[in-house]
Amino acid sequence: MISSRLVSLGARTGPRRFMSTASKLTTVEVNDKTGIATLTMCRPPVNGQNLELLLDIKSSIKEIENNSSRGLIITSASPKVFCAGLDILEMYKPEQQRLRAVWTELQNVWCALYGISMPTAAAINGHAPAGGCLLATACEYRVMVPDCRIGLNETQLGIIAPKWLVSGFLNVLPKRVAERALTQSRLFTTDEALQEGLIDEIATSKEEAVEKCAAFIGTFARVNPVARALTKQQFRADNLRQFHKEREQDVENFLSLVNRPEVQKGIGLYLQGLKKKKANKK
Amino acid sequence: MISSRLVSLGARTGPRRFMSTASKLTTVEVNDKTGIATLTMCRPPVNGQNLELLLDIKSSIKEIENNSSRGLIITSASPKVFCAGLDILEMYKPEQQRLRAVWTELQNVWCALYGISMPTAAAINGHAPAGGCLLATACEYRVMVPDCRIGLNETQLGIIAPKWLVSGFLNVLPKRVAERALTQSRLFTTDEALQEGLIDEIATSKEEAVEKCAAFIGTFARVNPVARALTKQQFRADNLRQFHKEREQDVENFLSLVNRPEVQKGIGLYLQGLKKKKANKK
Amino acid sequence: MISSRLVSLGARTGPRRFMSTASKLTTVEVNDKTGIATLTMCRPPVNGQNLELLLDIKSSIKEIENNSSRGLIITSASPKVFCAGLDILEMYKPEQQRLRAVWTELQNVWCALYGISMPTAAAINGHAPAGGCLLATACEYRVMVPDCRIGLNETQLGIIAPKWLVSGFLNVLPKRVAERALTQSRLFTTDEALQEGLIDEIATSKEEAVEKCAAFIGTFARVNPVARALTKQQFRADNLRQFHKEREQDVENFLSLVNRPEVQKGIGLYLQGLKKKKANKK
Repeated sequence: MISSRLVSLGARTGPRRFMSTASKLTTVEVNDKTGIATLTMCRPPVNGQNLELLLDIKSSIKEIENNSSRGLIITSASPKVFCAGLDILEMYKPEQQRLRAVWTELQNVWCALYGISMPTAAAINGHAPAGGCLLATACEYRVMVPDCRIGLNETQLGIIAPKWLVSGFLNVLPKRVAERALTQSRLFTTDEALQEGLIDEIATSKEEAVEKCAAFIGTFARVNPVARALTKQQFRADNLRQFHKEREQDVENFLSLVNRPEVQKGIGLYLQGLKKKKANKK
Repeated sequence: MISSRLVSLGARTGPRRFMSTASKLTTVEVNDKTGIATLTMCRPPVNGQNLELLLDIKSSIKEIENNSSRGLIITSASPKVFCAGLDILEMYKPEQQRLRAVWTELQNVWCALYGISMPTAAAINGHAPAGGCLLATACEYRVMVPDCRIGLNETQLGIIAPKWLVSGFLNVLPKRVAERALTQSRLFTTDEALQEGLIDEIATSKEEAVEKCAAFIGTFARVNPVARALTKQQFRADNLRQFHKEREQDVENFLSLVNRPEVQKGIGLYLQGLKKKKANKK
Repeated sequence: MISSRLVSLGARTGPRRFMSTASKLTTVEVNDKTGIATLTMCRPPVNGQNLELLLDIKSSIKEIENNSSRGLIITSASPKVFCAGLDILEMYKPEQQRLRAVWTELQNVWCALYGISMPTAAAINGHAPAGGCLLATACEYRVMVPDCRIGLNETQLGIIAPKWLVSGFLNVLPKRVAERALTQSRLFTTDEALQEGLIDEIATSKEEAVEKCAAFIGTFARVNPVARALTKQQFRADNLRQFHKEREQDVENFLSLVNRPEVQKGIGLYLQGLKKKKANKK
C-alpha cells in the first residue's frame, strides 16, 4: 500500500503565500506484513529542505504516528543523496517571514521525529550533510550505504547547529568527537561514521539498508510497547524540554545569523560555485 | 569473621505486617587483613528481590558503612545467579502497601550503594538482569564470570527502568548503547558487557571475581580517603539530587504501571511459563 | 616575532604584596605565516603553578585573544615537564590571602583557556599531572610526546579536582573512565592517554607536537570563524555557567581542604620526600 500524502491547507483562511496548497514531496508506504511504515523523501535532485518538503515530512511523520505503525523508516528516492539539508535558496536573500517558517518547520520535523514513541530508523542511501544528518540522528538506528558522507557541517556556511540538534548528535557521538566535528564542519565517510558510532551498520544497497532497518525495528517484537515508548520518552525528555524552552530564541538566532552580510555573501559565492560546476558539466 | 546481620524491627510500634522481624538473607564478611567487607546475598534460588531481601541488603550496606571498612564487595551465594531482580511475586496481584514498600526499598538500596563513599565493586558470579544489574551498576567496578547475562530488561515485563537507575547505567555505557539496550530489554553476554564497558573484567570463578574486586579496591591504598570520598560524592551528586527530587513520583509511576491490567496479565503468563518449565524439568 | 609579555601592575594603587610587579614566566610567539600564537610556560624546572605563573598565563591568553590570532598552542620550555600543576609550596603553611589568590587565578586561567573562541591545542612535551592536565583538557586538541604521564591526581595530596575542572575532563573521557581515574589519582601513560581519548595524537618531539597542533588549527581554515566561535561557545556554555555559579564556593572548599591538619602533614611529608630525592641525586 502506498499512500502519497497530500498537504491540503486550502481550507485555512487568510493569506498564506509561503505554504503550498498541494504537494507530494514525500510518500508513505506501509508494509502490510511487518506493519512498518517507510517515509521516502522525493524532492529531486537532493531533497533540499525547502519549506514545502519540511511541511510534508512533518505531516508524514504525524500520519505514521496516527496510524500506529510498528515503526518508521526514513529514506530517500534520490539515488545518491539521502538529504542535502536546508535548501540553500531558502537562505539567500530571504523573505523574512518565509525564512522564519523554514526554520520553525525544521524544528518541528526534528521534534516530531526525535520524540515519536515508535521505533525509528534511517536508511541512509546517500549523502547526509546538515539537515540530512539531523533526520538520521533523530532516529534510533542508522544504516548507510558505502562511500557517502554524513555530518553537521553548518559552520561552513556561517550558520551553526543549534543546541537541540547538537543534543541528538551527542546521543550517538562522544563529546570530544562531537565538538571537534561541529567546529570543523566535518563530514564523516561511511566507514568513519561506523567507527565513531554516528551510524550503526553499513549496507551495500538502499534495499539492504531498508531491510536492516526493518530488522532493527523487529527486535522490539518481544518487548511491551507501552513500556518501550515510556522508556524512549524518558530518555529523550530532557533534550525535548530544553528544546521547547529555547525554540523561539533559536529562530531569532538563526535569522540574525543568516541575515549577516558576510553570510549572505558566502552563500552567494557558494551558489555561483554550484552554477559553474553545473555549466562545466554540460 | 562472619557477622550475619539480623533485622530486628520488633521494638517499633504499630502494625508492620510486611516487615520481617528477623531475617538472614545477607551475610557480611570482613577480611581482617584487607579490611574489605563482602556482602553476600543468600535468598535461594536466584536472590529474587522481595521486600525482606531488599531490607536486608540496605541494612548490610549501612552496617558496612558504619564499620568504616576499606571497601565493599557485593556477590551472591547462588551458584548461577548473581541476582534475578525484583521478585516477580511481589508484582503479581500485589497488596498495594507492600508493593509501595518494595519499590521504596529498591530505591533505598540503590541510593545507599550508589552514594556510599567507600570503594565498591560487584563480583557478578552469575546472571544479573534488572535489579541485579542495578546493584552492579551502582558499584564502581564490575567483574563477571563467563557465559552469563546482564542488563536492564524491564520493558520485557511492561515496566520501565526509572531515571535514577538509568543515570547509573549511563555512567558506564555510551548513550547510544544505553538507549537501545533499555528499549530492547537487551541482556548482554559477559563478552558483550566487557566490550561495551558494562563490566570491567572477566573472572573464571566467583573466587577470582572477588579477588579482582579486592585488587581494584586495593588501588585506593595510596590515595587520601577523604579526598577520594569527596571526589566520588561530587561525581555522583547530581544524579542523587535528581533521584531525591523524583523518588516519590517514581513510586507512583511504578505502582500505576504494575497495576495496569495488561501488565498483570503479562506477569501472569510469565509465571505460568516458569511453572511449566519447572514441571518439564521433573 | 617573539613578544615576551610583561605583567606591569605597578600602576595599580594600594598594597598588593602577593602580586609580582614584573615577571616573565611565559612567552608568546606568533607565527607570521600561519597567524598561530604559541604560549610557552618558562618557570623552571617544572612550571610549578605559583601565583606569578598563573597571572602570566592568564595575561598571555588575554593578549593572544586581543591580537585575534588564528589559534593558540600552549607548551613548555622545560625539556621533560609540560606543567607539574600547582606549586606545592603555595599550599604548604600558606598565607591565606595568597592561597585564595592562587586558586582564584587557577580558576581564571581555566576559564580563559576553556572559553576562548579561537582554536586551541596543547603540545604536551612532558609530564602533565594535575594543573598540567587542566591546561591540556581546556584546549580542543592534545598532542603528547612518548613515555610521559598525564592525569588529575589531586586526591593523592588530599585535595580534589573541582567540578569545573572535571567538566572539562568529561569532555574527553567516558564517565566510567573519568570517575575511576579521579578517585584513583590515575596518571595515564602517553599510550594509555591516546587509547582512552585523553590525548589525540602522539609526537616524537616537542617540535613535531607543535606542528601537529598547528595542523589541527589549520583544519579550521575553510570554516566561517564566527560560526566556529559560536559553535564552540555554545558547546561549552553550560560548563562555564555552572563554573561561574560555583566559583566562590569552590575557593572556600579548596581553602578548607588545604588547611586540614592531615593535608598539611601529607604535603609536608611529600616535600621531605622531594628533598631526600634531590639529596640522593647529588
